[in-house]
Amino acid sequence: MTARLPALNQAGLGVRAQAMLAELGAISSDPQRLVRLFLTPEHRRAADLVARWMREAGMSASEDALGTVRGRWTPPGGSGTRRLLIGSHIDTVVDAGKYDGPLGVVAGILAVEAIAKSGASLPIGLDVLAFGDEEGSRFTATLTSSSACAGVFDPTALAATDSEGVTLADALRAYGKDPAAIGQCAYARAEAAAYIEVHIEQGPVLEAQDRPLGIVTAIVGQTRMRATVTGMAGHAGTVPMPMRRDALAGAAEMILAVERIAQQNAADAMVATVGRIEASPGAVNVIAGRVGFTVDLRTATDALRHAAIAQIREAAARIAERRKLDVAFEIFHDTPTTPCDPRLQDMLQAAIEDLGHAPLRLPSGAGHDAQVMAGLCPAAMMFVRCRDGISHNPAEHASPQDMGAAVAALAGFIARFAQAQG
Amino acid sequence: MTARLPALNQAGLGVRAQAMLAELGAISSDPQRLVRLFLTPEHRRAADLVARWMREAGMSASEDALGTVRGRWTPPGGSGTRRLLIGSHIDTVVDAGKYDGPLGVVAGILAVEAIAKSGASLPIGLDVLAFGDEEGSRFTATLTSSSACAGVFDPTALAATDSEGVTLADALRAYGKDPAAIGQCAYARAEAAAYIEVHIEQGPVLEAQDRPLGIVTAIVGQTRMRATVTGMAGHAGTVPMPMRRDALAGAAEMILAVERIAQQNAADAMVATVGRIEASPGAVNVIAGRVGFTVDLRTATDALRHAAIAQIREAAARIAERRKLDVAFEIFHDTPTTPCDPRLQDMLQAAIEDLGHAPLRLPSGAGHDAQVMAGLCPAAMMFVRCRDGISHNPAEHASPQDMGAAVAALAGFIARFAQAQG
Repeated sequence: MTARLPALNQAGLGVRAQAMLAELGAISSDPQRLVRLFLTPEHRRAADLVARWMREAGMSASEDALGTVRGRWTPPGGSGTRRLLIGSHIDTVVDAGKYDGPLGVVAGILAVEAIAKSGASLPIGLDVLAFGDEEGSRFTATLTSSSACAGVFDPTALAATDSEGVTLADALRAYGKDPAAIGQCAYARAEAAAYIEVHIEQGPVLEAQDRPLGIVTAIVGQTRMRATVTGMAGHAGTVPMPMRRDALAGAAEMILAVERIAQQNAADAMVATVGRIEASPGAVNVIAGRVGFTVDLRTATDALRHAAIAQIREAAARIAERRKLDVAFEIFHDTPTTPCDPRLQDMLQAAIEDLGHAPLRLPSGAGHDAQVMAGLCPAAMMFVRCRDGISHNPAEHASPQDMGAAVAALAGFIARFAQAQG
Repeated sequence: MTARLPALNQAGLGVRAQAMLAELGAISSDPQRLVRLFLTPEHRRAADLVARWMREAGMSASEDALGTVRGRWTPPGGSGTRRLLIGSHIDTVVDAGKYDGPLGVVAGILAVEAIAKSGASLPIGLDVLAFGDEEGSRFTATLTSSSACAGVFDPTALAATDSEGVTLADALRAYGKDPAAIGQCAYARAEAAAYIEVHIEQGPVLEAQDRPLGIVTAIVGQTRMRATVTGMAGHAGTVPMPMRRDALAGAAEMILAVERIAQQNAADAMVATVGRIEASPGAVNVIAGRVGFTVDLRTATDALRHAAIAQIREAAARIAERRKLDVAFEIFHDTPTTPCDPRLQDMLQAAIEDLGHAPLRLPSGAGHDAQVMAGLCPAAMMFVRCRDGISHNPAEHASPQDMGAAVAALAGFIARFAQAQG
């Protein structure tokens, strides 16, 4: 069964998306800035608004034990056994923008509405999922909502606490949910045909390449390390340059080595960041005896990341040896790369090209619910251009034109996916 | 008139010096560590002990309006109109060693005692000065004691406060001194023939060169600057390497440039130190948008220091331009180089060689009372080897052998200096 959609009014969809994001963006615990944390009264209000929109779009709406709002559309006469999952999140960071997360939920609702209105009878059902815990801004656990849907919720997360010591378990109960029912959130593998997520890029690449939409090739794997460089503290006036064991000068050389190694792997879109540094004792007139710095390394393939870690360690060891310093690395965070499904990427490509746009394929440098859902079923992501690459900031912005194109491309993708299932 | 001294018992003098330093080092406001601050009860006790030693050595002892203990020896039958000043300080940093400062006072007392006992009648008088404010550990002013003796006391220093808000003026009064009498501390230029100071090196050079004694060529000039590097903060995952304006990577390159410029001026004994650094926002997963670091630059000649500052600014500007960063420097401390008197250096050389030692000429990378006294009269310093270059630390150590040699060399210097005056 084919589902050839009538051409959609992208401009109108973009204006509607913008209005819906503005309405959601007004729901905040802080009148001065956007703050919408998991399982708070603002989460409740946002979830209720999203559920209303889902119903208005022709879906039934329910909530699971993690508070995820689930809009469900079952095609007329269709069995709906297999379902395409369309998701993103409605929680925010502190002082957030309006687009990171909500755009994917709004795009899903508008695309499903367009499908429903078209009268098409797809061979699959459609679920729009509004997750409540992607940013990890409240508890010391994150991605718990999508983990529950994917059937990989870690029960130890229930003991995670917020800044006031409230556990996730208690917050769930206060929100009217039953932690014992979390197991029932999980989709059966036979039911979940695929997962698709629309999200702003949160980076500057699409804008720099003048492309409204992108296709995510992989969600990058991340390794975070702490380096500790130990030399010898000393008087800034009395120790001649050749006799110094300056931990900060050594760390400076290592930071440049980290940068160079990432630059040498541009084809992998490798990025490496040293964002924190502390020199000890940290006095103007004392040679630094010890320096700590962090390395955040992200790659589109695990093998290249592991090779880069080895290169960084070797380069640092060589620098330390030459400078009579010691250096030690400790990995404190490591997540593997999540490749996106190639077949879904090709369908996204066709759907975007149908609109007359040339999509760019690029990795996602940030984490997303899609990386969890990819453990359940084939997963893919579409990126929407954002202004100046700014995200996690009130200045975050995507244009109505680009959002309208994204909704239309998502609807086109749904039709193509359904056709392939039929 | 010549003053040929009998050979002194260096071993005995070293043992005596060590015992005196141990006795002084036991005078502390903290039973767990050595803390002896300006105008405190511990300063009082140390000053009284030093005055007693001066009298036992054949001097009269008095105190001036800044609390400087002045031991005075006038040669038998000599007019004493012109005087050689021999000084150092008896205040300490917090958690100090026993040698930094007191060694110069003890060496002066023992050398004058040797001269006095020899029965020599010099054509000059000898003053031993035990300054109380060299470290600047109590008030937001420093070198006030020697400034008063040199006639360059800055009256605004009287308003300087300690950590409890007590002004220098009030502390002086509580110590029994009259701030209005500070002008009377100043030596007449006709009276001050020269100033000589014995001090531990506080660095590792003499030890590395296996020399017990050194001759200071100059007290280095110091410039302290704050550099601020501004780039663009960004997401550690979503901004590709070529699009970054990473302030910390730029700062790392600048830190290495600072190090390289100092290394290229080894002949000047130039030293440059970046001891403080702060990256902002300072998160593991955020590209640094702003980095501040300090530069402490010390040189044996002002011209080379000024040239090096220009080189550092130029190198940083080039790095910033290439990386699309901004960089700004602000000088917040600047003191000129104080060359030591060449004739006095040669006399020290001869006196040390008389003992069979080969002295090393080297600049002082740390500040000393001598830099103030050099404004009054020709000044020189003798350095004594210290263990591992450690200072401002309880592990600070000079051997009795080396201290005995220093006392004998100082006595020999006094005799040679007197001879030249006769």
